[in-house]
Amino acid sequence: MPSAIILIADGTEEMEFTITYDTLVRAGVACQSAYVRNAAEDSTAPRPYAHGSRGIRIMYDAVFEAPQFLPPASGYDALVIPGGAKGAETMSSSAAVQELVREFLAQGKIVGMICAGSLTALTSKLPRQPLTSHPSVKAQLEKIEQNSPLHFDYSEDPVVISSKLVTRHSNLNPSRHSRGPVSLFIAGTAFPFALTLVEMLCGAEKRAEVRAPMVFPAATPF
Amino acid sequence: MPSAIILIADGTEEMEFTITYDTLVRAGVACQSAYVRNAAEDSTAPRPYAHGSRGIRIMYDAVFEAPQFLPPASGYDALVIPGGAKGAETMSSSAAVQELVREFLAQGKIVGMICAGSLTALTSKLPRQPLTSHPSVKAQLEKIEQNSPLHFDYSEDPVVISSKLVTRHSNLNPSRHSRGPVSLFIAGTAFPFALTLVEMLCGAEKRAEVRAPMVFPAATPF
Ligand SMILES: [Cu+]
Repeated sequence: MPSAIILIADGTEEMEFTITYDTLVRAGVACQSAYVRNAAEDSTAPRPYAHGSRGIRIMYDAVFEAPQFLPPASGYDALVIPGGAKGAETMSSSAAVQELVREFLAQGKIVGMICAGSLTALTSKLPRQPLTSHPSVKAQLEKIEQNSPLHFDYSEDPVVISSKLVTRHSNLNPSRHSRGPVSLFIAGTAFPFALTLVEMLCGAEKRAEVRAPMVFPAATPF
Repeated sequence: MPSAIILIADGTEEMEFTITYDTLVRAGVACQSAYVRNAAEDSTAPRPYAHGSRGIRIMYDAVFEAPQFLPPASGYDALVIPGGAKGAETMSSSAAVQELVREFLAQGKIVGMICAGSLTALTSKLPRQPLTSHPSVKAQLEKIEQNSPLHFDYSEDPVVISSKLVTRHSNLNPSRHSRGPVSLFIAGTAFPFALTLVEMLCGAEKRAEVRAPMVFPAATPF
């Protein structure tokens, strides 16, 4: 059974988190939500839930600091980084998250970034490759200032699968080919994003099997 | 500011709950999730969360038994009943929920039923009118057995707005015209359902304002 870590933090966009988690579970993927603590939070008085961007409080399955989540990653097959400005800021500024992103990609595993979650591609110092994101972080992802080299090849496509070579961290083994991250433009594309992850983890047949009973309105383009 | 009660129970479909709550909050609707306790649950040892159909645990804002939710309804403008087979069973078999549905409709307020949540239209003994639902409860909603009269005019449309006369309960004032319930076919139609509620509560302009930044893929039919 494939497995996935889905990060969550205060300010995570609850639709993006829930649609992805729920859809992956429908496909038989073992999902674990891992809570990334905000630097300002009192870790001696932990809360069992994350406060979503629209006020929905979601209990997390485990704290991201637990050894099974930290790099070098254990047996999980995919890592998902949802959006929501404040949650994405917390995740993208976590050194352990950045390290895990690089580790996953170096191992040829799947990393899915949603909306503002794509900021983590920048903070993880991933090499230049196709990417999409919430428009609010587009400028950061493209380049810091006029005339500076492009960080990423920004795309307006709803879901972008990058398959560039991902350079390994210098203290690890030499680079090998792997899939780059999958990124999602914005909340409205969360369903096609989640179904893309299902296809990558479980195949096209499983994608069709999970999609059918969701019965999207006729002519829905995914 | 319009306000909405969104019911939640163990077994509630987490995407249907979250997409509706989140979208209504984006429109400026004050949302309160109200937890409907399962008859078998130990009410002396309450849990602060509902266990969703795909394992996501969502903290509720209040327990449905609280006076502000019970009929006759207080100031809320809309009532939303999500699907998920087990959650919908708990909600539809609650006499207080049934009474609240009738009360809301009698007062011309909005009742939104999602997927298996439409079962509550049956248990609340609403008069025959157009309705849609998860296919698993279609047979129950149409008629109990061959040759018995139709309970509802079942539709396969993704979102159905009924505007039939809703007969008031016999111990209340005489019937008056009101909107019937809004129903949603299945999870894949949760976005158009939520946007329909936004339009009914806040107008077409607000619907457009909320929908635009969600950026659905081109050609999305809602
Ligand atoms: Cu987002």
